[in-house]
Amino acid sequence: MNLAITDVRLTPILVADPPLLNRQGLHQPYTPRLIVEVVTADGVTGVGETYGDATYLELAAPFAERLKGCRVSDLNGLFTVADQVAVDASRVENAVDVGGLRGVQTADKLRLSVVSGFEVACLDALGKALGLPVHALLGGKLRDSVAYSAYLFYKWAAHPDGVPAGKDDWGAALDPAGVVEQARRFTERYGFTSFKLKGGVFPPDEEIAAIKALAEAFPGHPLRLDPNGAWSVETSVKVARELGDVLEYLEDPALGTPAMAEVAERTGVPLATNMCVTTFAEIPEAFTKGAVQVVLSDHHYWGGLRNTQQLAAVCRTFGVGVSMHSNTHLGISLAAMTHVAATVPNLHHACDSHYPWQSEDVLTERLAFDGGRVAVSDAPGLGVELDRERLAALHRRWLDDDGALRDRDDAAAMRVADPQWVTPALPRW
Amino acid sequence: MNLAITDVRLTPILVADPPLLNRQGLHQPYTPRLIVEVVTADGVTGVGETYGDATYLELAAPFAERLKGCRVSDLNGLFTVADQVAVDASRVENAVDVGGLRGVQTADKLRLSVVSGFEVACLDALGKALGLPVHALLGGKLRDSVAYSAYLFYKWAAHPDGVPAGKDDWGAALDPAGVVEQARRFTERYGFTSFKLKGGVFPPDEEIAAIKALAEAFPGHPLRLDPNGAWSVETSVKVARELGDVLEYLEDPALGTPAMAEVAERTGVPLATNMCVTTFAEIPEAFTKGAVQVVLSDHHYWGGLRNTQQLAAVCRTFGVGVSMHSNTHLGISLAAMTHVAATVPNLHHACDSHYPWQSEDVLTERLAFDGGRVAVSDAPGLGVELDRERLAALHRRWLDDDGALRDRDDAAAMRVADPQWVTPALPRW
Repeated sequence: MNLAITDVRLTPILVADPPLLNRQGLHQPYTPRLIVEVVTADGVTGVGETYGDATYLELAAPFAERLKGCRVSDLNGLFTVADQVAVDASRVENAVDVGGLRGVQTADKLRLSVVSGFEVACLDALGKALGLPVHALLGGKLRDSVAYSAYLFYKWAAHPDGVPAGKDDWGAALDPAGVVEQARRFTERYGFTSFKLKGGVFPPDEEIAAIKALAEAFPGHPLRLDPNGAWSVETSVKVARELGDVLEYLEDPALGTPAMAEVAERTGVPLATNMCVTTFAEIPEAFTKGAVQVVLSDHHYWGGLRNTQQLAAVCRTFGVGVSMHSNTHLGISLAAMTHVAATVPNLHHACDSHYPWQSEDVLTERLAFDGGRVAVSDAPGLGVELDRERLAALHRRWLDDDGALRDRDDAAAMRVADPQWVTPALPRW
Repeated sequence: MNLAITDVRLTPILVADPPLLNRQGLHQPYTPRLIVEVVTADGVTGVGETYGDATYLELAAPFAERLKGCRVSDLNGLFTVADQVAVDASRVENAVDVGGLRGVQTADKLRLSVVSGFEVACLDALGKALGLPVHALLGGKLRDSVAYSAYLFYKWAAHPDGVPAGKDDWGAALDPAGVVEQARRFTERYGFTSFKLKGGVFPPDEEIAAIKALAEAFPGHPLRLDPNGAWSVETSVKVARELGDVLEYLEDPALGTPAMAEVAERTGVPLATNMCVTTFAEIPEAFTKGAVQVVLSDHHYWGGLRNTQQLAAVCRTFGVGVSMHSNTHLGISLAAMTHVAATVPNLHHACDSHYPWQSEDVLTERLAFDGGRVAVSDAPGLGVELDRERLAALHRRWLDDDGALRDRDDAAAMRVADPQWVTPALPRW
């Protein structure tokens, strides 16, 4: 068995994305992702997926070169490799601030986001080589399926200008009734039993009304609201007080540890985050100040599945809950999230996933939600298979793009409809 | 490949131990250890080692029964199994307080100490089954050898009454000259370059003199002093101020987080611990109060090698250093320590090990220190092999014992020489 990496393939792609609204603007018609493949000397191929914006691609290329000759079992060594790859700080600072939605932007975090794609690919290859599922490489699953929540969005019926392909079959959702209708469809199609609404789009009273409508339509079901830090402390406190009885948690109501700590102290409503705490460096202040009660790990920017386990250990130690965040992603990342989630003992909340919104994937077979849960695969590796034709087609779309969509930019997407749109200053309300 | 556990063997043994002095009293002539073997359906055997006192043995037996049918890859599941095994709380409370030397005694910690023996055995078996070294199962080594420190003890020339076998070849060490001579022998035999003195035996001025003598004999070498919490805050501050210039760190000068925090704040000398922080539950208070600057992990009571990695991640997150503690142990545990130490990025201090004091082992080949370092094995599993004749002989010694030595009791050992001896009340000085 030769676990040495002899080849690494990087394939940037553009994936269709519906017209979902958030605090920054609108999801673009296509969003960039990077598909990573590592190939061992024995010809075993492992796949991974991470962000595909230009700054990530620029870092992934030299990283891939350095990886050749390492073994797919050298998972700790990936961070050593990352430290050796230089990052142009000005590129990080000037990267599109998707931004507010992914928390702080630092060179280290960019490196970790790139590491995660390679780490998952190495785990997939290692599992295939050994005949073990990825969860077994992470110490073994503690559950046979992982619960996900319905990720509700305010959305338009179609992208402005009708690009790419007219209306999707979800329709618009711009008021409480539309949100409830979307939630109902999520339950019918996928069996989700908990709901997260992406907020920060409309004035807080409208979003409060939407959550109340959900609480009425789905009594007793866990509900969450996430305005991505759009609110002041006072607004956050007001919303928390109005919704405290029905919310499982409130996600990133205000920006930054001091503001979150104040909201938590004044309301007692559990606060979740994928913005206030997105790196290990941000943990000490946030945890000692009681600013967050649930950390939503994103294995991409935390540096992979094993770092996600370590994050969960830190959270467990400090009595902080843990669950999982999602940005637009494909089935490779959903499989990776499911494997690691199955190994985390203190995962007490359903994970987020955009996957139901993605009509396109690079797999021969899509992952399925059954009763709101994804089954943990016991097949070797991640248990997914690349559809090379689909991959090639989505890569061609990336090649054909003039560069406008190669960096996700929700504000630019919004300007197609509203040329005056600028990312709102925070707190917006 | 069938990784199911079909058999588990538990072999309690008594191992010769020299007359080493500490705050509690004296090492017994023989000390108990438990050797754990797990056997898979494919006939692969993995070995582990943990504490062998009666309370550990009582818990290990039902644990072993529950383990049959699990797979050696179900490492996360070991903690689920542990939760299912009842612990008689009164047995924990009444266990011999070696005690002061292993930190708090709780049912959870007892469970974790038992888990660690099984976890290492499972990792050894899994590695053998897959053809991978244990470090590769932990994400891969970051270094090819691991540095250990010379573990210096005040000691007598022989056990009282000449049991078991007269004088060892180390001789007595009861003053600065004896300590320096012992250190010199350690460097000659094993190449150690850093030194730890087990203190709390003599009045602080004598131990200060011993450290100063070491500093003079080995200028620039890292030095440590560990009185196992024998001192008051005032005494700790005095010693820290006298030795601050020559100490790498001071280990557990005083008992408990508040006392340690005060010493740290008043002196600025880094404090290490294997008593103040020995469980994840003790971390938040100690870290937020700045009570410890280096946690000395003992994979036995932290619950195994993977928990040791998680502890290291917590320490890294909070800017706290990490190294490794040792109680009397054999080669299996030294191999396990070396594998995990090789994978911890933030291991910046030489690890402790009693191994050079152990003239007996259960391996066909002893592990070697070269230049104070142990090479990280790349053989499948731990890279060690049981000597079944030796194991059987040491087990017979355990069987033949009337029970007096089956629980390590350093105070009882001291009473053989000094019938009036009682464990000193703390702080002693």
